[in-house]
Amino acid sequence: MKKTIPNKSALNEKKGVPQPEFISDLVVKNIKQFRKIQPSSNELIDGILKGNISDLSRAITLVESTNPEHLAKANEVINACLPHANKSVRIGITGVPGVGKSTFIEAFGKHLTSLRKTVAVLAVDPSSTISHGSILGDKTRMEELVKDKNAFIRPSASGETLGGVARKTRETIILCEAAGFDTIIIETVGVGQSETAVHSMVDFFLLLKISGAGDELQGIKRGIMEMADAIVINKADGDNIKKANLAKSEFNRALHLFPAKKSGWMPTVSTCSSYTKDGIDEVWKTITNYLELTQSNAYFQEKRKEQNQYWMMETINEQLKNHFYNHPEIIDLLEKKKKAVQNNSLSPFAAAMELLSTYFK
Amino acid sequence: MKKTIPNKSALNEKKGVPQPEFISDLVVKNIKQFRKIQPSSNELIDGILKGNISDLSRAITLVESTNPEHLAKANEVINACLPHANKSVRIGITGVPGVGKSTFIEAFGKHLTSLRKTVAVLAVDPSSTISHGSILGDKTRMEELVKDKNAFIRPSASGETLGGVARKTRETIILCEAAGFDTIIIETVGVGQSETAVHSMVDFFLLLKISGAGDELQGIKRGIMEMADAIVINKADGDNIKKANLAKSEFNRALHLFPAKKSGWMPTVSTCSSYTKDGIDEVWKTITNYLELTQSNAYFQEKRKEQNQYWMMETINEQLKNHFYNHPEIIDLLEKKKKAVQNNSLSPFAAAMELLSTYFK
Repeated sequence: MKKTIPNKSALNEKKGVPQPEFISDLVVKNIKQFRKIQPSSNELIDGILKGNISDLSRAITLVESTNPEHLAKANEVINACLPHANKSVRIGITGVPGVGKSTFIEAFGKHLTSLRKTVAVLAVDPSSTISHGSILGDKTRMEELVKDKNAFIRPSASGETLGGVARKTRETIILCEAAGFDTIIIETVGVGQSETAVHSMVDFFLLLKISGAGDELQGIKRGIMEMADAIVINKADGDNIKKANLAKSEFNRALHLFPAKKSGWMPTVSTCSSYTKDGIDEVWKTITNYLELTQSNAYFQEKRKEQNQYWMMETINEQLKNHFYNHPEIIDLLEKKKKAVQNNSLSPFAAAMELLSTYFK
Repeated sequence: MKKTIPNKSALNEKKGVPQPEFISDLVVKNIKQFRKIQPSSNELIDGILKGNISDLSRAITLVESTNPEHLAKANEVINACLPHANKSVRIGITGVPGVGKSTFIEAFGKHLTSLRKTVAVLAVDPSSTISHGSILGDKTRMEELVKDKNAFIRPSASGETLGGVARKTRETIILCEAAGFDTIIIETVGVGQSETAVHSMVDFFLLLKISGAGDELQGIKRGIMEMADAIVINKADGDNIKKANLAKSEFNRALHLFPAKKSGWMPTVSTCSSYTKDGIDEVWKTITNYLELTQSNAYFQEKRKEQNQYWMMETINEQLKNHFYNHPEIIDLLEKKKKAVQNNSLSPFAAAMELLSTYFK
């Protein structure tokens, strides 16, 4: 059994009350040591800017905390890191469970570090609170990458809402960039709303697929195909190569039916194998081409500015809603109005107006 | 020049003050007549439930008014109509300008009235405030339908926000249904956010297209294809028939790449000509098939309930945002914070928190 570390709250001193003499030296020592391992904001900032991974991890823990004091400290660190961030490429990777996201990221990440890139792998998985971390929860799935000194892997933050999880990941990107990582990979499962959140925090959005009878498409959320800058068909090895190539030409045809992207980029379709590593280098070449195009036509910079504003607005709108829907009077009234609306005895608009007048009065 | 009708407010009587003797008989007569042409809520409700088109139009005008008194009256009428509504099929039709929406709706509407259906045609076009009513603004485009006793055509409401325009159209649906219309067609231009709004107020969503070099797709918003329950390729006549059939098979292939719909419905692709009327009857057959499927698997009823709740929440969220963004202190501060976020001197989350604490203090 582990030794119990005394809780900070045990130190609540009452002013003017003399210390009892029987205080344990051991406890005092432990507490002092505990305090020591909590560096100040400035120490954290210094550490992060020097690329210290322990300080980076500590700062991320602050970002993920629900303690308001920690959040205030996190904000301080993030704002100091901001001028040193933004110098990376942010890549979003989505795909339903079973397409081999982890093995792909392992192969892709190793390819990137072989090119002397430094890679941070993050995840947005709001379901992980319930399923206890399906994404990146098991670092052993990326055995090679986890041992790589130029890679940093952090499982998805947990939280009750997607907004909360997304916020934490977004701020973690800033910290990783300030710590010198030049390639940020953000993984998500393409089954909920999370890929929309990820799409609005990355420069390049990659949809991972496998070839098959078409039923592998069932699980994926509508609209994702249109968000993709590249569709990569994984597991194109052995008997699968032919099927993968067929899928490739089918997706290519389909993509041509979509309207042109604002970026001027025409989404690509390619095949790869995370096992044989065939096609992995091509994925990076595609991203390089994309960066060349969008940095020269200024779409890249414009998109990042828009994303910053989007996240400011998103946070505001989410908090406005939280405040309203957690209002004690609203909680009771909402259920009643919902029922009235369902029974067609009250119009949705009238119901909304009654709720709002209660809230604002 | 028109005679000026005296304003209602001129009649503000003060209790106990005797009428001056020099009151004009003419003015009194005018005022009485004015009051007479403004029926009470109960008169309006009675009229609507009897299918009186003038009363229906008057009630819609109240819904579209910005006068709070009118809105209160509108709410009264709508809530009384609600139990008599919901007995129709609501069809959304979208397509970029030039695909022939008006001529299609004319041909389709005439086909419906020939089947003894009663058809109300509405529109959601937030741009009409600026462009002065591009959609249905010109009723002469539907010469035949406009003369049809079993059809009712109402141009798009105007308003500053899509939310406002959508709210008005949604309440107009209720009124039309209570007036006995069994088929509601809602038209929108597939270039903004409006088709998402229309999609969430209809049972069946139809995307109108024309065959061509692919560039007709450019104007359409991403994601619309995935929302469609049917894609209809219009102008399939004369030299166009071959191209239209080619487009049909291409869209059919593409649709198979999309995930299955929650309704269990597999979207269809067909061709038609609003000119020769070929394929118009098929569109209605498709909708009948859809209704059979979704009414038997209860998706139809479930979707309507969800839509009601969606609109209640939408209205609340929109009003919360309005209240925040029109707050005098916020207006000033927002611009400053936006700039700070753009310059990367403040994180989007920190900026949002500063704005929120100003708002809630």
